Amino acid sequence: MEPNKATQDPNRYCVIMCGGIGSRFWPYSRTQRPKQFIDFFGTGRSLLQMTYDRILPYVPAENIIAVTNKSYVSLVAEQLPELRPENILAEPARRNTAPCIAWASHHIRALNPDASMIVVPSDHLITREAEFGSAILEGFEFVEHNDALLTLGIRPTRPETGYGYIQVGEPVCGNILKVKTFTEKPNREMARLFLSTGEFFWNSGIFLWTVRSILRAFEENAPEIASVFSAPDLLGEKGVERAFSACPAISIDYAVMEKAPNVYVETVSFGWNDLGTWSALYDNSPKNRDANVTQNCSVLAYNSTGNIFAVSGDKLVVVDSLKDFIIADAGDVLLVCPKDHEQDIKQMVNDARVKFGEKFL
Amino acid sequence: MEPNKATQDPNRYCVIMCGGIGSRFWPYSRTQRPKQFIDFFGTGRSLLQMTYDRILPYVPAENIIAVTNKSYVSLVAEQLPELRPENILAEPARRNTAPCIAWASHHIRALNPDASMIVVPSDHLITREAEFGSAILEGFEFVEHNDALLTLGIRPTRPETGYGYIQVGEPVCGNILKVKTFTEKPNREMARLFLSTGEFFWNSGIFLWTVRSILRAFEENAPEIASVFSAPDLLGEKGVERAFSACPAISIDYAVMEKAPNVYVETVSFGWNDLGTWSALYDNSPKNRDANVTQNCSVLAYNSTGNIFAVSGDKLVVVDSLKDFIIADAGDVLLVCPKDHEQDIKQMVNDARVKFGEKFL
Repeated sequence: MEPNKATQDPNRYCVIMCGGIGSRFWPYSRTQRPKQFIDFFGTGRSLLQMTYDRILPYVPAENIIAVTNKSYVSLVAEQLPELRPENILAEPARRNTAPCIAWASHHIRALNPDASMIVVPSDHLITREAEFGSAILEGFEFVEHNDALLTLGIRPTRPETGYGYIQVGEPVCGNILKVKTFTEKPNREMARLFLSTGEFFWNSGIFLWTVRSILRAFEENAPEIASVFSAPDLLGEKGVERAFSACPAISIDYAVMEKAPNVYVETVSFGWNDLGTWSALYDNSPKNRDANVTQNCSVLAYNSTGNIFAVSGDKLVVVDSLKDFIIADAGDVLLVCPKDHEQDIKQMVNDARVKFGEKFL
Repeated sequence: MEPNKATQDPNRYCVIMCGGIGSRFWPYSRTQRPKQFIDFFGTGRSLLQMTYDRILPYVPAENIIAVTNKSYVSLVAEQLPELRPENILAEPARRNTAPCIAWASHHIRALNPDASMIVVPSDHLITREAEFGSAILEGFEFVEHNDALLTLGIRPTRPETGYGYIQVGEPVCGNILKVKTFTEKPNREMARLFLSTGEFFWNSGIFLWTVRSILRAFEENAPEIASVFSAPDLLGEKGVERAFSACPAISIDYAVMEKAPNVYVETVSFGWNDLGTWSALYDNSPKNRDANVTQNCSVLAYNSTGNIFAVSGDKLVVVDSLKDFIIADAGDVLLVCPKDHEQDIKQMVNDARVKFGEKFL
């Protein structure tokens, strides 16, 4: 179970999904440079780079594959120069996670039909990396010895309404249990109930399985996707374009996990946050004594508490009488919006598109 | 009284005062480019240039003199390429308006002892230029035939607490009356009273007199300044430096106007605002249907009214739930502050200096 041994296992692969556009973090996250490519915490490494660094002790470097939108291939290559060009898969269209995973799984099977793999998003925060490492080693061991689709379920620390939850069933071994149900995002009252029972875990979007298990699961549960990616003419740019244009846009949860009978959850606790919202970023960032969070900028705050400042470059921000706001400046776009209106940002992005075209997206 | 005749009067001079630093408009107005040098209304001309354009029909071009701080000489020369270099007087130190006017008056006397002159600030807004023209022609006529110090008093349109007022005495001729008293800025109740009596006018800081009258008034009322600028060693950069370092920093109102017996006011009404504050700028700018004012930028405003946006460059600003705020962005500094806290901006500038040095000033 030590990293060194694991690193030497040539059957283990990792798929890093990094094709999202991160519009909920607009304007800090932009179409041209979505959030996974940003040094969110001012550490010198982007979220994508942190994801790569985190997985590297457990998977051979040559077995790490990034799947991204074709428009981000050069960004990925620039941020991860260690990746071989053939390890960057360029999606010709946005089709959510199921087609992405189906394609990557076929790609890996062609390289190694005995492969096991972990699928990780590139834009999450994980603070306790050693515990993450132990967890994925336990997961690899499990899926390599069982025909299992394994998802990591995060032990909840608050009644979060922004996540889907997994209800666990009977224990199997170690931290691994059968999945009873996947749930939609709950309301506040329901989230409190989930937390109190101890049976519900956050759905992290991190998966482990063998290519055999996942490809069989696609065939059984999502034949419309399985057939597209098992077609003989998949090879080449044209073939990939045809495949993606024939696919529905659907998540792996809907397409496979909620239907398959062999779905398991490993319950884990390694300081995880999906950084899906400004509030999540605020909650996970160190605060100053006024409970303000600043990102890479100098702030003078008067009568102002509970704000998150995300301002690019060496800029001074002076605010007075702002409470619980997002202040995000990305050079040519400034957003000042209450944290509890952050669900409206997508609409604002749409309004900006209608009024100004693609210029500010 | 037509401009053409006046333009040909070689005895008429204009002194444009343009040495202020405009810190109340920080960060839109910066030490390196104070407000008079900014194209405040997006018209293509700065406030200084608008001031020059406004005076040009009434004073021969070669008789227009700009007095500025030495650090802004190149800005003045750049914005007013029509000015001869010798018509830009560079103050070596900030000493308020009295030393500035004393120096300029001595300078003009050396050129033409029979000169009359108008002194104008460079950072005010005047919307009805034809009425301004008629007013200053009436003023020139009056001071050229009387030993008079004339100030323009603006007929008030609201109970403004940000201005000094002039109470008028007995009428003399046309729109010209004796001055009864100069007042300090009143409180709201007093300002309402001032407005209701019809006897009080806003002190515009625009003056007319002959060089003979003003220099005699300096000798009689501010000998400590008069003696400095009538000294024989004034000539040359060193002499000017000595003179300014020997002067107190004092306004022309305190030094001369409030003491001299021959002070008159011409009551005028030409759409004047001293643009002394963000609120004044807000009040004088066209508003959209949400009562927001935007300066040179694109704004998407949600649940937001009564704001003034002053953002440099081609920037999109998106705000939600801001009411009656100043949103000012100057590239490396962003200010978000309630309009009714604008008197605190000077303190914020001081705080920025203490914390970050001169960088953001």
